[in-house]
Amino acid sequence: MRTLKVDLGSRSYPIYIGENLLAQSGLLAAHISGKQIIVISNETIAPLYMDKLLASLENLNAHKIILSDGERYKTLTTIESIFDQLLEMRCARDITIIALGGGAVGDISGFAAACYQRGVDFIQVPTTLLSQVDSSVGGKTGVNHPLGKNMIGAFYQPQCVLVDISTLHTLPSRELSAGLAEVIKYGLIAKKPFFNWLENNIDRILEFDSDAIEYAVEQSCLCKAEVVASDEHEKNGRRALLNLGHTFGHAIETGMGYGNWLHGEAVGCGMVIAAQFSAKLGWLSDKDVSKISRLVSTAKLPIQLPKELTVDKMVELMAIDKKVKDGKLHLVLLKDIGEAVLTSKFDHDLLYNTLNELHNNT
Amino acid sequence: MRTLKVDLGSRSYPIYIGENLLAQSGLLAAHISGKQIIVISNETIAPLYMDKLLASLENLNAHKIILSDGERYKTLTTIESIFDQLLEMRCARDITIIALGGGAVGDISGFAAACYQRGVDFIQVPTTLLSQVDSSVGGKTGVNHPLGKNMIGAFYQPQCVLVDISTLHTLPSRELSAGLAEVIKYGLIAKKPFFNWLENNIDRILEFDSDAIEYAVEQSCLCKAEVVASDEHEKNGRRALLNLGHTFGHAIETGMGYGNWLHGEAVGCGMVIAAQFSAKLGWLSDKDVSKISRLVSTAKLPIQLPKELTVDKMVELMAIDKKVKDGKLHLVLLKDIGEAVLTSKFDHDLLYNTLNELHNNT
Repeated sequence: MRTLKVDLGSRSYPIYIGENLLAQSGLLAAHISGKQIIVISNETIAPLYMDKLLASLENLNAHKIILSDGERYKTLTTIESIFDQLLEMRCARDITIIALGGGAVGDISGFAAACYQRGVDFIQVPTTLLSQVDSSVGGKTGVNHPLGKNMIGAFYQPQCVLVDISTLHTLPSRELSAGLAEVIKYGLIAKKPFFNWLENNIDRILEFDSDAIEYAVEQSCLCKAEVVASDEHEKNGRRALLNLGHTFGHAIETGMGYGNWLHGEAVGCGMVIAAQFSAKLGWLSDKDVSKISRLVSTAKLPIQLPKELTVDKMVELMAIDKKVKDGKLHLVLLKDIGEAVLTSKFDHDLLYNTLNELHNNT
Repeated sequence: MRTLKVDLGSRSYPIYIGENLLAQSGLLAAHISGKQIIVISNETIAPLYMDKLLASLENLNAHKIILSDGERYKTLTTIESIFDQLLEMRCARDITIIALGGGAVGDISGFAAACYQRGVDFIQVPTTLLSQVDSSVGGKTGVNHPLGKNMIGAFYQPQCVLVDISTLHTLPSRELSAGLAEVIKYGLIAKKPFFNWLENNIDRILEFDSDAIEYAVEQSCLCKAEVVASDEHEKNGRRALLNLGHTFGHAIETGMGYGNWLHGEAVGCGMVIAAQFSAKLGWLSDKDVSKISRLVSTAKLPIQLPKELTVDKMVELMAIDKKVKDGKLHLVLLKDIGEAVLTSKFDHDLLYNTLNELHNNT
């Protein structure tokens, strides 16, 4: 087992990464102070891992809440139904909420924990690669709104994150690929050697090689933890670098309707667009763009804009993105592999034309 | 003008208290960093003070959201409608939300600010005595649930609080009294000399004497700011002392249906019950109980349990109160005027019997 720490002063917490961690009862129990536990999961994950998790919490009073599976249930309505159930069970302020599942379960459960009685303890047990390397670390929680993704939420840190990579054996390969988008992202924004390692080892990960996966998850969580520790609430621009590919990606996700493109697929495509636009600005070589496209494509992620989404619609959706500040669109772009920058200093016509060109080439 | 400071490290903020502060443009502008402002108010307060506030923000891009008036609209549904409007107006993360109104407007607006795009800047402009001395200071925000008051919310500190006591001239006298419940509370929990001052000056306040009101508001905010600074998230028991009378009060409010008893009326009655139960435990003299009852009654607040609410129902509602910890009901009781304690060490039969006795005497 590898243990990392997210360094946030009084809100610091550990990330445990390893195989078969779900069965280790002591790990979670050390982070639970009250007596009552609510495990929130969904109809897909619960049958696979709920019993194992509950067994490891044997002496504690644990109840479960099962959500429908899918990003389209990541809404205030679902949050409201969780509050109803918590209050019907008379849950007091000293409960611990455990999220068992992927990113949607974690985001929903974390936001419910942040708001229930103004905040109760919370633990992340992510079961998808995407949530293990991204959403479970760093405290971003929330739900979607018809007019935008993750528009409603809170920064709320967990007591700990338990990453059992054994859960990836039941993950559909399409979702493994979606998770790899974020893994590649860490290489692109801050870790060139890791990017190079990925080029050589992406196939091992796609074949579920445990050692390769554990290393990739650790490197990803390390990068995420460093960035989050330096900018918890996305104030100084550092944390915003984690959004490489996301402004384009969110527009694709929203434009195509939540759930049609997986988040990681949209981000994978978004990173390729960011690389291509960075090259247009003269910041990145065509060779690097090719390396990035090739790695994203090898990870079985889309690298082309969806034909169905017009460039006008996409630009409109990007304008409502959270990265808009003082009315200006900010993008994370690449100066090099391993060096990302947040900037609003680019020609908007050039952006529009680049998107149009990419759209016509699909 | 008097200026107090709520000392919370990087989240510290000032409270400005005085007459005609709404018209002073520089005061608020100094706390606004973005360009777009959303003033949230309700249909009762907006016609009285919205124009004055907007005029003081003359060079800024300000829009308004008008809510229905009343505690019964303090729900997730209202929060959702605010999110809809903010997104339709394409509000970005750098907006400032200003709450102009009483406690409900402040709690709703603050919670919306806490959750919109995971948190935007927020300013409190309370216009009722209750909100000026209590809810606008300390960062508690949230909404009610049919199964309990303030069950959903966040700790979220404002950039500043602007208390214009001139707004009290349009406050119905019943609401002025409701606010006095919290003013009296500060004397009871930590400021015996202030309690004594109130005994001598309560009539001046009821007659809207500006000097008396300004002093009472200042002393109340000082006490609240001190307590909040020592226990921001209600973790060490100190902040819980502010709940004197509230566990009984919330049960009365919920049991009678939100809005039938004003919050302050329920708290006034709740403080008298807390004093009477403290006396039963031998902690407080009968003379002090009489002094407390007399002051609460002089402030035109109820001091008797509502006949319609059975003791069984009341005890049931108290069991779901946030002050329940490890399954035990905790109450704030009095060792003396000016000395409150949080405790679960009391005989529950004695509590039940005391409530029964008080109920039979009504």
